[in-house]
Amino acid sequence: MDKLAIVLLSGGLDSTTVLAIAKNLGYLPLTLSFDYGQRHRVELGKARVIAKKFGVEEHRVVSVDLKQFGGSALTDDIEVPMDREEDAMTAEIPVTYVPARNTIFLSYALAFAETRGARDVFIGVNAVDYSGYPDCRPEFVQAFEALANLATKAGVDGESLKIHAPLIQMTKAEIIKKGLELNVDYGLTHSCYQPTPDGTSCGRCDSCRLRRKGFLDAGAVDPLNYVD
Amino acid sequence: MDKLAIVLLSGGLDSTTVLAIAKNLGYLPLTLSFDYGQRHRVELGKARVIAKKFGVEEHRVVSVDLKQFGGSALTDDIEVPMDREEDAMTAEIPVTYVPARNTIFLSYALAFAETRGARDVFIGVNAVDYSGYPDCRPEFVQAFEALANLATKAGVDGESLKIHAPLIQMTKAEIIKKGLELNVDYGLTHSCYQPTPDGTSCGRCDSCRLRRKGFLDAGAVDPLNYVD
Repeated sequence: MDKLAIVLLSGGLDSTTVLAIAKNLGYLPLTLSFDYGQRHRVELGKARVIAKKFGVEEHRVVSVDLKQFGGSALTDDIEVPMDREEDAMTAEIPVTYVPARNTIFLSYALAFAETRGARDVFIGVNAVDYSGYPDCRPEFVQAFEALANLATKAGVDGESLKIHAPLIQMTKAEIIKKGLELNVDYGLTHSCYQPTPDGTSCGRCDSCRLRRKGFLDAGAVDPLNYVD
Repeated sequence: MDKLAIVLLSGGLDSTTVLAIAKNLGYLPLTLSFDYGQRHRVELGKARVIAKKFGVEEHRVVSVDLKQFGGSALTDDIEVPMDREEDAMTAEIPVTYVPARNTIFLSYALAFAETRGARDVFIGVNAVDYSGYPDCRPEFVQAFEALANLATKAGVDGESLKIHAPLIQMTKAEIIKKGLELNVDYGLTHSCYQPTPDGTSCGRCDSCRLRRKGFLDAGAVDPLNYVD
């Protein structure tokens, strides 16, 4: 029997690649998306389509009320930065940082894993191209794994929970190459922080710029259309 | 100026005592409750009243959709155990355990703390009288603190976040004595897992039994009425 794994799936390029990796490793993935009031909620629909395409047996969408605390350009009326060079993106923690987001997301993944008897959780965090977020660092992932093994029945029973972050040391170009190798259709994915009402990517926010540069560096064609 | 602290406030005996302790230590508490589909949702109203009574400036209630994963007698149609002796309560992880609950709650506290610039979080977990829950152990709290310092801006900036669990090594009787010393009105609190529709405590679930025994051991009178 295949081993169950919980895969955090935003509908973006990174998490979709992670889903392909988990499947390729022989896991039976269950996917989890979050509706946290993000401006780019279009990604939730993409996640659903992607989960279906990958034959995922259970795809859950959890509503997470992060907007009520405020503090992020992804959920509030704070301007999303445009046209920034990569140096500027990583120089400080960006305004698109959502406080404690990955901690909250992984906590829900833990609840999902525990109720389904899964011992493996996959998350698409990446420390190379986007080191500005504190909760994308390898130390963070390790600390969460340590916590997970103390927080749950699995830990008490002596079984261990593993948090997999297969992209953590990869560049965007390497992620894209890996995904293409695994036949990921990146036309299904969404990366833009500030899409138009019809879902078209702006091409200028940090996320679009990193994606486009990734495809360029990978020598591949990005199937998405952009406004600019 | 008083230092801000986030206090997790369920409306129960333990968390209300923690709120009194935080206030007594000179913190300016902001409180956080969770609506997670618990049978004993009556506690949410109590939490609001308690927060007001303590002059809390900001009380938040976060909806947490734990029911959709299932797996607990507190949220699902699983029977709440009644009339159990203390030995039986702590022999194994009880069915009232909600998967990853404290991990999720502390994650939200972290988001709240980060957006308000608080560096202190208080939680009323207790390892003595209720060691059956894995996420009530001191190791769990320490692991979360380590995580918190890697997950957030505060950690990156070199400031440190502290998770306070002042009750962790106290018996229920000690908690009650401490609260009475600080003039906590336990008549405002709610502990029962399976109250009647009008909110009266059953007197027989694990939580009621621990509470009643606590008052007995403390030589104090429990101001609550019970069905049995």
